[in-house]
Amino acid sequence: MISVPNKNDGPQIHAITAGTTVFSLEEVQCVDELWEEYLTRGSESSGYYFLVEKDDDRVVGYVCYGPRSLTSGTFDLYWIAVDPNIRRGGIGRRLLDACEQAIRNLGGRLIVLETSGLPNYEPTRKFYLATGYTLEATLKDFYHEGDDLVIFTKHL
Amino acid sequence: MISVPNKNDGPQIHAITAGTTVFSLEEVQCVDELWEEYLTRGSESSGYYFLVEKDDDRVVGYVCYGPRSLTSGTFDLYWIAVDPNIRRGGIGRRLLDACEQAIRNLGGRLIVLETSGLPNYEPTRKFYLATGYTLEATLKDFYHEGDDLVIFTKHL
Repeated sequence: MISVPNKNDGPQIHAITAGTTVFSLEEVQCVDELWEEYLTRGSESSGYYFLVEKDDDRVVGYVCYGPRSLTSGTFDLYWIAVDPNIRRGGIGRRLLDACEQAIRNLGGRLIVLETSGLPNYEPTRKFYLATGYTLEATLKDFYHEGDDLVIFTKHL
Repeated sequence: MISVPNKNDGPQIHAITAGTTVFSLEEVQCVDELWEEYLTRGSESSGYYFLVEKDDDRVVGYVCYGPRSLTSGTFDLYWIAVDPNIRRGGIGRRLLDACEQAIRNLGGRLIVLETSGLPNYEPTRKFYLATGYTLEATLKDFYHEGDDLVIFTKHL
């Protein structure tokens, strides 16, 4: 079931992020920082919104998103991750659907997301193409030399 | 002469931003916030770097830039503005050159900048094309309906 997380879910969100093979230590720390901002200041003030999918009390995936400043109705999808031990249950797609619905409810018109062009992100890129996102741009060597930025959008 | 600004330059930087015809009130406030972060925490800690061009003690233009988190060597050019009363003196180009050199000195490889697709930003977009930037993407209706995001890059 998908819900807004409570503070006890933090360690499990951290564990899922750290347990994926794709995120760097710096990226795991970034998710931790957004989570702390969310806990301390709340979504509206921090600009960071989270949703989790739970199997009983166990968090099996999460998504983090928020409004882009200086825009009206554009949201960033910052992070989405599923417990690597239980992939392929449609959890990612359910989280994405729920996130899009929540963004619509907040008045969102457009979702922008950034991901990597590295080969190990190919399943991620295919996932976004399969869920209605448009590949808008590839910025060469953005993250590091040889690691491009890929930008996707979806108009709601 | 181009230099790192001191705290007395803040009101003039604000006045230049507010005096241009293109920036919204929200955008002027955003520059003010970055300036406050810069003053309070310094460039390295805040991630915001400023340069100003001065004619004696009068600030005639400024640029604000900083490293993009989760990258190595990619910098955002956040803001560049010239006193609207004294345009066409090559101030914008000198500030951009100085900013690029400063980014190189910080180990930067790539500059990313975002601007608007509105007609009144056409001189801005032409300026970037004339100074070696590549138009990478146009995200439709990003800022508002009818106001696209245009992304430029330059590899240093």
